[in-house]
Order: sequence, then C-alpha cells, then structure tokens
Amino acid sequence: MPRWKLTIEYDGTGFCGWQKQPHGLSVQQVLEEAVRKFSGEKPSLQVAGRTDAGVHARGQVAHFDLERPTCPEEILGALNFHVKPHRVAVLKAEAVPGDFHARFSALARIYKYTIVNRRAPLAIDANFAWHVSLPFDLEPVCKAASLLAGKHDFSTFRAHNCQAQSPVKTLDFMEVERCGDNIVFTTGARSFLYHQVRNMVGSLVMVGTGRWSVDDFAAAFAAADRTRGGPTAPPQGLCFWKVEY
Amino acid sequence: MPRWKLTIEYDGTGFCGWQKQPHGLSVQQVLEEAVRKFSGEKPSLQVAGRTDAGVHARGQVAHFDLERPTCPEEILGALNFHVKPHRVAVLKAEAVPGDFHARFSALARIYKYTIVNRRAPLAIDANFAWHVSLPFDLEPVCKAASLLAGKHDFSTFRAHNCQAQSPVKTLDFMEVERCGDNIVFTTGARSFLYHQVRNMVGSLVMVGTGRWSVDDFAAAFAAADRTRGGPTAPPQGLCFWKVEY
Repeated sequence: MPRWKLTIEYDGTGFCGWQKQPHGLSVQQVLEEAVRKFSGEKPSLQVAGRTDAGVHARGQVAHFDLERPTCPEEILGALNFHVKPHRVAVLKAEAVPGDFHARFSALARIYKYTIVNRRAPLAIDANFAWHVSLPFDLEPVCKAASLLAGKHDFSTFRAHNCQAQSPVKTLDFMEVERCGDNIVFTTGARSFLYHQVRNMVGSLVMVGTGRWSVDDFAAAFAAADRTRGGPTAPPQGLCFWKVEY
Repeated sequence: MPRWKLTIEYDGTGFCGWQKQPHGLSVQQVLEEAVRKFSGEKPSLQVAGRTDAGVHARGQVAHFDLERPTCPEEILGALNFHVKPHRVAVLKAEAVPGDFHARFSALARIYKYTIVNRRAPLAIDANFAWHVSLPFDLEPVCKAASLLAGKHDFSTFRAHNCQAQSPVKTLDFMEVERCGDNIVFTTGARSFLYHQVRNMVGSLVMVGTGRWSVDDFAAAFAAADRTRGGPTAPPQGLCFWKVEY
C-alpha cells in the first residue's frame, strides 16, 4: 500500500490545533476529510509536529497510506480542492517508502517565532506575531539565546503536561534577528518538549525587556524548574517552519 | 486650531475601503468614530491615498483638526483604544502646521504589490497576496517595468472611472524582486491614477507568465488605451506602504 508524504501550510487562527478534538475544528480533521472525499478511504494522518490552537505552519509534514493507485499531481489537486474553504494548503505530495514516518523519521524540526516590537497595537500582523510594546534590547537576548544550544535539561521550558519521557534534549540552534519592528527567533532540534519554543521565547523576552539579566536567565535555565521560567509566549507568533529528514 | 497628522496601518480585508460609504464599514468611519469618542468633536479625516476594498496600508497618512488641547501620546493611546476591535492601528500622531495637508502636501506615495507564485493555493497569505500559479519569468518583467519610469500618458493603466484631470503622470520607479515564491513590486510617484498600480501589475504579470512579450507590453503602454491593457490585479496584494512629505 503506497505511503504519501504531504508538506502542508496552514493559518492556525480558528483551528483548535493540529490534532483532532471532540470539540473544535482541527487541521487533521480538515485534511483527513479531504483524503476521504478524494479516495473513499479513511487513513489516519501521522504528523511531524502537533501544533496548538493558533499556531501556524509553513512546512508541516504528515504521511498516510492509500490503497487506491494515484499520483502526486492528483493528490495535490484533489486535497487542495477538498480542504476549501479552510486555510489549509498542501504544498507538495510525494510517494515515500513504507518505512518513512513523518514523526519518527524527522532529523530536525525548525520553528520561527515572530515578535512585533512597537508601541502601537498590531492591525495586519495581529494573528501572526506577539505584540511586545516595551523597549527591547537585542544584544543580551542573543547572549541568553546562545546558552540554549546543545544538550541540556530543558525542564525550565517544559509545559507541566508534557508527555516526553525525559526533559533532556539537544537544541541545534536558537537565533534571533531584528528587521525593523520585527524580531524573529529561529530554532531547530530533532525534537522539542511540549511548549518548549514558546517557553524559551517567553523567557528571552524577559531579558529583552530588561526584566531579567542574562545571569537571571542562565540561573533560571540551570534550575531545571518550570516555576523559575518566564511566561509562555502566545501561540500566534509561532510558525512550524520545516522538517528535515 | 491644532492640526494632527496620523500614520495608520490597516488590514483592508472586510473594509469597503478607506472612504465612507452608505453601505459597508470603511477605515475612515472607524477612525472618525474613534476621534469623536475621544474628543467629542467631529472633524473629517483627509487622507493621502484612498484605498479600495481589500487593499491594505502600512503607512497611510491622514490629518484632522481638533479644538481640544491634547498631545501625541494621548491621541495615540485614545485612538488605538477606540478603534477596537477593528484591524486598524495608529502608528504615530504628530502636531503639524495648519498648512499641512495629507493629500496635497504629499511628495511621493509608495505602494507594494505582492504575488505568491506557486502551484498550491495560499493558506496564510490568502488575504495579502495575489496567487499566480503559472510559471513566472522575472527577467522580461524587469525589462517591461523599466519602461514605466518617467513622465508618460498612463491611460492604458487608468480605470475608466478615474477622476484625474490628466492621464499624464510621472512615475518615479517600479521595481520587482523575487524572494522564494514571493514576487514583490514596489512603485513610487507623487500621485497615481485610479487603479494605476493594480493595472500596471496586471499587465506585468501578462509578461511574467509569457502571455505577452516585452514588445507587447511596450505597444500596449504606448497605445494609451485601457482596452489594450492587461487585467486589474486583485486588491488583496496591494499595500499602501508610505508617504513622503
């Protein structure tokens, strides 16, 4: 039975997240219904990274198996037709070997988190960025961010309901760039703890706005204790950027 | 009576455009109601560039006169409070001399038009770009775009209901850049004819998608005849970027 890999974009606004829920519309449900309408089959979609309500994706990856013979062109056209009118688009469909797994075969996941740093509220970017109105100093944030790379106990940035077996993860990188009013964090790892990116960004913003020193950040990180961490950055600034296999 | 200059951002989705209309919600109405709620006065807002339904602004400028003594900080805070929940934000409020006029004092208006060039439909950018799915060749578009700068009769790109006295305008520049799937046109002039930017982009896309040669474009432009022009690019790709005074 052929296995198909999809690369997916979605606007997370208005979805209850990737995963099917008893209440609320999920991206998974929209895509699984599109597969069913197209093929008559009801495969489950396995995903690289479950995203929360309001979190976006430019390069989410999912896979599913289909008995019906088809081709990438047909899948792309049919799924993009059947997901309408929802803000979900299938960017690519590829046939993959039967041992490919969207979640378990991933070598790296990349997220971007966007802040708009200005006094005025956001009109255009309200659903796609965190509005931080306090003055923001990038230099100490870059220093604090550089402490995150490598293998560490990330308990300070782990949601209390995270189901990972261990809080120890290897972060490949955490970069910060400013472009005008926009401050963009880009981070990559083989896998992340639940809410890890949003919790790391929330603590880095404590540094950027001067409420924490770099030393405060380092101490909170070393404490390996979620109660020592900063707030969880809001979901709408987060975008699941891509997956490497 | 002090005159105030506002720099304004808005998401044009869902508005009937800048200007007040008997039916539909306009950006002007939202802002004038905010001024009234804040000050009890009912000044009209004069704007640098009226935008159509669905067109966005990152740097629209408007002015109004207020009897009540106030300061930029108070205006900024009060207007951003009273425009809620609409997707309008006042970025800056400045006291200006009484001979400043948002429309007539403008020396240059800059617009950006964004295309996303890919097969898959748009999920995240649907309200902020024109989806062009045909292969797009940038090189001839740059050649055609370079023909537009300077003083010309722009009748080919002038909407039939344009109220300007003359179709002769001086275009300062029309630049085109590609970044990934995004193709961004940036153009500036002291003033534009009605629909001029969207009509120029619509014709440049005829060149980019190979339906017109650069010579076809040049001939259509030289004809000074709207019926020879390409289609009007859709509103959601257009953003009123800034005004220079």
